[in-house]
Amino acid sequence: MSRVVLTVAYDGSAYVGWQCQPNGVSVQQRLEEAITELSGDFHRVHSSGRTDAGVHARGMVCHFDTDSTLPVKAWRDGLNSRLPADIAVQHARVVSADFHARYSASGKLYRYQILAAAVRSPLDRCQSWHIKKTLDLEAMKSAADFFVGEHDFSAFRTTGCAAKTTRRTIVKVDINYQQDLIVVDVEGTGFLKNMVRMMVGTLVDVGLHKRPPEDVAHLLHRPGDVKPALTAPAHGLCLVEVFY
Amino acid sequence: MSRVVLTVAYDGSAYVGWQCQPNGVSVQQRLEEAITELSGDFHRVHSSGRTDAGVHARGMVCHFDTDSTLPVKAWRDGLNSRLPADIAVQHARVVSADFHARYSASGKLYRYQILAAAVRSPLDRCQSWHIKKTLDLEAMKSAADFFVGEHDFSAFRTTGCAAKTTRRTIVKVDINYQQDLIVVDVEGTGFLKNMVRMMVGTLVDVGLHKRPPEDVAHLLHRPGDVKPALTAPAHGLCLVEVFY
Repeated sequence: MSRVVLTVAYDGSAYVGWQCQPNGVSVQQRLEEAITELSGDFHRVHSSGRTDAGVHARGMVCHFDTDSTLPVKAWRDGLNSRLPADIAVQHARVVSADFHARYSASGKLYRYQILAAAVRSPLDRCQSWHIKKTLDLEAMKSAADFFVGEHDFSAFRTTGCAAKTTRRTIVKVDINYQQDLIVVDVEGTGFLKNMVRMMVGTLVDVGLHKRPPEDVAHLLHRPGDVKPALTAPAHGLCLVEVFY
Repeated sequence: MSRVVLTVAYDGSAYVGWQCQPNGVSVQQRLEEAITELSGDFHRVHSSGRTDAGVHARGMVCHFDTDSTLPVKAWRDGLNSRLPADIAVQHARVVSADFHARYSASGKLYRYQILAAAVRSPLDRCQSWHIKKTLDLEAMKSAADFFVGEHDFSAFRTTGCAAKTTRRTIVKVDINYQQDLIVVDVEGTGFLKNMVRMMVGTLVDVGLHKRPPEDVAHLLHRPGDVKPALTAPAHGLCLVEVFY
């Protein structure tokens, strides 16, 4: 028995999310189908976490146990020839049995893309949130600084979130831009359901001058006093990397 | 009567190309339909040129004449609300009657994207050509330099090309990269049918060491002596800007 770890990239547009769901096709389902087809056996795949419907990934990490003796390059290339064009294994390796894609993870890097432009951009439409107005990037950067550190993120999770504790540590929130495209990189040790998208929703409110940067501090320290922001749409979000 | 000029961006994946064709839906058709719907009258649109099936644009330019007195912002926003998600007017302006989208153009900038990586990338798959091998960028840059200047590009046009003269001037061929993504920017005063894609096909051959950089010089000066390269696939190409 060996434990195989895959790094998987996908365009989430056509999927109900990472995890298998009764209401549609998931990335996990397509991956498990490809593994079954390649190895002749069903293998349950365990991921570093879930991504919501429509969210993309460049570096989702997952593992499975197998009796197969296929070399890692054959796993990578064999799966890629069986996966649809919008999912691809980027890397495969064999690890020891004490590695777990979820429990061994020490952190994650997400990227959220915002297109701040008067008109929509067809070529960027599937991977960025279009905001028709100019955003005040300096105000957004001031607001972003409040997120860094360990805080109670209970104001930044959706109602369906089942996490036992809401304390999380954010390592960095970097905001950069190239012309109209604003790129928000969020790195943290762990995330609640919809947390990045609610953080970005708040930052965009600040960028639009709908709320002051200090609202982030209020949401973190006195969550009941301030209205949480809307959740930014899924298609602007991408799981870039999982750290171990 | 006024002449309206539009700058149009589109994801060419779903279209038979810019120009109206009997065998499928074109970008021009969708645009003319939207103009008809908005203004109540059919207007024939004249573009700076055609793009092939699957080629994208961020800055296609076209014009039409109209008796409508709609302000330019209403043209832009009114058309965008009637166009599908993969086509959008970026800019509209009114010009004098001596302006012509095609005949007034002084040059064009195209961008071709190549993903040189062991495995395919789902999120880049619609806008880059995936090459599984490493490319020698220095050799490609040496080859690219031969293109600059006025030359006979008869080796770099497809058989269906109806242009009367094959002499064209290339202003620059810049090759840059970000990680695995290689970006080739080609600026010229005019282009033959498939010219950029055949230039890129040759550069990739050079990058793969299938032919020396000097083959570009031979193709330009003694076209019969050297086999032309394959045409790079359409989906890696984007018309970035038309100059006037």
